[in-house]
Amino acid sequence: MKTLLLNADMGESFGAWTMGMDAEVMPHVDLANVACGFHASDPDVIRMTVRLARKHGVTVGAHPAYPDMVGFGRRSMACTPEEIENLVLYQAGALAGVCRAEGLSLGYIKPHGALYNDMMRDPEVLAGVMRALVAFDPELPLMVMATRDNSQAEALAAEHGVTLWFEAFADRAYDAEGRLVSRRESGAVHHDPETIVDQARRIARGLPLIARDGSELVLRADTLCVHGDNAESIAAIRAIRAALHEPEAS
Amino acid sequence: MKTLLLNADMGESFGAWTMGMDAEVMPHVDLANVACGFHASDPDVIRMTVRLARKHGVTVGAHPAYPDMVGFGRRSMACTPEEIENLVLYQAGALAGVCRAEGLSLGYIKPHGALYNDMMRDPEVLAGVMRALVAFDPELPLMVMATRDNSQAEALAAEHGVTLWFEAFADRAYDAEGRLVSRRESGAVHHDPETIVDQARRIARGLPLIARDGSELVLRADTLCVHGDNAESIAAIRAIRAALHEPEAS
Amino acid sequence: MKTLLLNADMGESFGAWTMGMDAEVMPHVDLANVACGFHASDPDVIRMTVRLARKHGVTVGAHPAYPDMVGFGRRSMACTPEEIENLVLYQAGALAGVCRAEGLSLGYIKPHGALYNDMMRDPEVLAGVMRALVAFDPELPLMVMATRDNSQAEALAAEHGVTLWFEAFADRAYDAEGRLVSRRESGAVHHDPETIVDQARRIARGLPLIARDGSELVLRADTLCVHGDNAESIAAIRAIRAALHEPEAS
Amino acid sequence: MKTLLLNADMGESFGAWTMGMDAEVMPHVDLANVACGFHASDPDVIRMTVRLARKHGVTVGAHPAYPDMVGFGRRSMACTPEEIENLVLYQAGALAGVCRAEGLSLGYIKPHGALYNDMMRDPEVLAGVMRALVAFDPELPLMVMATRDNSQAEALAAEHGVTLWFEAFADRAYDAEGRLVSRRESGAVHHDPETIVDQARRIARGLPLIARDGSELVLRADTLCVHGDNAESIAAIRAIRAALHEPEAS
Repeated sequence: MKTLLLNADMGESFGAWTMGMDAEVMPHVDLANVACGFHASDPDVIRMTVRLARKHGVTVGAHPAYPDMVGFGRRSMACTPEEIENLVLYQAGALAGVCRAEGLSLGYIKPHGALYNDMMRDPEVLAGVMRALVAFDPELPLMVMATRDNSQAEALAAEHGVTLWFEAFADRAYDAEGRLVSRRESGAVHHDPETIVDQARRIARGLPLIARDGSELVLRADTLCVHGDNAESIAAIRAIRAALHEPEAS
Repeated sequence: MKTLLLNADMGESFGAWTMGMDAEVMPHVDLANVACGFHASDPDVIRMTVRLARKHGVTVGAHPAYPDMVGFGRRSMACTPEEIENLVLYQAGALAGVCRAEGLSLGYIKPHGALYNDMMRDPEVLAGVMRALVAFDPELPLMVMATRDNSQAEALAAEHGVTLWFEAFADRAYDAEGRLVSRRESGAVHHDPETIVDQARRIARGLPLIARDGSELVLRADTLCVHGDNAESIAAIRAIRAALHEPEAS
Repeated sequence: MKTLLLNADMGESFGAWTMGMDAEVMPHVDLANVACGFHASDPDVIRMTVRLARKHGVTVGAHPAYPDMVGFGRRSMACTPEEIENLVLYQAGALAGVCRAEGLSLGYIKPHGALYNDMMRDPEVLAGVMRALVAFDPELPLMVMATRDNSQAEALAAEHGVTLWFEAFADRAYDAEGRLVSRRESGAVHHDPETIVDQARRIARGLPLIARDGSELVLRADTLCVHGDNAESIAAIRAIRAALHEPEAS
Repeated sequence: MKTLLLNADMGESFGAWTMGMDAEVMPHVDLANVACGFHASDPDVIRMTVRLARKHGVTVGAHPAYPDMVGFGRRSMACTPEEIENLVLYQAGALAGVCRAEGLSLGYIKPHGALYNDMMRDPEVLAGVMRALVAFDPELPLMVMATRDNSQAEALAAEHGVTLWFEAFADRAYDAEGRLVSRRESGAVHHDPETIVDQARRIARGLPLIARDGSELVLRADTLCVHGDNAESIAAIRAIRAALHEPEAS
């Protein structure tokens, strides 16, 4: 079984406000998507988060977003591709500077929230992100969502010379296209630990999931996105990690 | 005559608002102090400014500031030294990322406005700035103000392993300590072009200025800060530059 | 001839950045659309602008926007209707507080930029704006764009008990639906003073304009939006004002 | 026994970040100091908080602050008195607008954090706050800290025609001047519920506290500031409230 790397959003506190349980999650993941100050985080939070990642040997990725602190980067904004290119570049650079101060290198880029969603449905947005990445460091992988058909993203990546890391979700239902079912619909989020671990295991082994409409869906994924907001979700992360390290025969 | 490098604040536009005449000033200076998004500038302005600097072979320096856009970084804020360290690091990194995208390297750091003033009077603030610089890149010079007695800044720089670049002003009156006379006092700013060019020439040659109280003041400076807000000030920059390149005998 | 009121965007400076020529424009308009701090302006600029309006007997209207200072409120944001309701309410209140301090009352509300455009094409956005207005003060008119067919906006206004003020543009070309031709198309903006004054006169008299496709377009308008960014546009405002006060027979 | 009103900071959440337990605290206080969007809160949080206050019959006060979201308004900023006047006015107006939408009136103004501290030590800052209050509504009381000697604040208030409400703290140690002992010193914050309730009772009855240096300190107070961050502190609020409603003879 291919080992899926676990990635989690980190550094989402802001000033006096705390979000997430970074200290509890960090020991159990491989990749930390660190907020860069546009939707969450600030220079102090970033420093602390990068130090925590270093302590646990976790790779730091930039998690750039639209400039919308009050909306937590979850609201789509009509930015031009050039604006997107520059705001990704700025945020990646800011985080990379802190990494450098801590003796680390930035490991990848994963856009956040509405920017991530917009990038997955609009090739111009995706191209803007890719231009930023290539200008900053063409060796950095770009994390995108694994769907049934990744050919459009792959073609654009090939054109820009960008390496893609595909991510999947163990705790979310998928539609037939391999898109996440909207949180507004019932059944969109899995809460049962066994269901979550089973979905993780299937993704890791290349086995099909059952999409919303009953069809089989095979996702090719390099990494699994996990969340650590409370004790229960941290337990789920540990269970997923254990399952992913089981011998294949089990 | 030692050649003083000319430095100017750049990239001080923000979104729909324009400030400064960067395109007119850039051809005549050596060092561009580029705003990093906390007191002025934004990712698009930074990109454009770095490109302009590259076009003219001008060295880009980070011009980090307190997080105070509406106050243009001119209002002192009671930040802790750790907060200062991290906000300098973040801003330097962001700008360095854009430089990297344009094939340049960050050349130095010069804090802006109230942060600059606070650093010059409070060693804890200065130490915070130095820690950021050393963590980011110990090779980068830190630009500070040349005063009559630079021993305190020099001692702290030696302790942190930081190279200092001292800057002086051709268009400002000095007090006996080598501090700038406050703009609120009459005579604080020189407007006569000949006075300005003469002061530049004296600084470059190590000749004494006449301080506010009539005493002689010798400033050791590596660079001269110039401003380009209007046609008149740009003419002054050109005149200073011409004077600094005159043969010593003239 | 019905007298069209002239409205102009005001208070669009921000901190150290100046925009517009408010002092030159204010004497020639009836209605000042004052930015409220989300896309432009700040408490000091608002105070100064309200004082200027009071001095010239100009009615102050709130010009609320999406929270996007760097984008000047020109980028559509995926806010919910409730978010829009609350951000309009907050901004109207802030401006009304300054008006009260200057002995004035808020006179109307005109959303800015992308919020204005979104409100004109999405009834849910428009309803959010109307709920804010009614909650704050149901007597305040809401300024909206005059188009060929205003029935949808009028129906929603009737439902909410809102008075509408329709605005038209003298310096912009219209399409057959009575929408502004996009600035990206050539001919979208009139520059010839005579054309501008003629369009103002036609709108005031209820005479048809010639739309982009050659069809006749009659706009019912209460107010004309004018801009004062430079000496030329201020001359245009004066010419429009003179034309609107001509006796009908001329 | 004079009944002290209980006041608490409310509406300190921001976007996706939650702070405080407003729903649990609101039923037990008389006065809600509502953040106005400069150090915490946003239009949605303000709306929700004002609705909660209305539901429980709690008076809403404006809690304006320096424009420093990342620093939570806790860092002193070198604003001019005019800037302070205008930022207080803007914030009071914004909150008053939401109150008006909910059928309430703004009840008082209490500056927050560093602005509160600066106002207590710098008469120019205090005067700026008072000018804002008087311009907005001279009937509004201004909440200030009760100290041993309130004569300076009282003289300035008399000059501006401002009513003062003095507040005291049941859970903080005082120095001989009636200033709060800095949180950096041990013993600055009382944790023992009996100590807290006893201090509240003494303040309400006009009995002396024992200051840091052992001297007796009588504080004249109209209101007591309480905090509701966790279950324990909410229990303390209830205990204080019960004690303040005891018959005097007990």
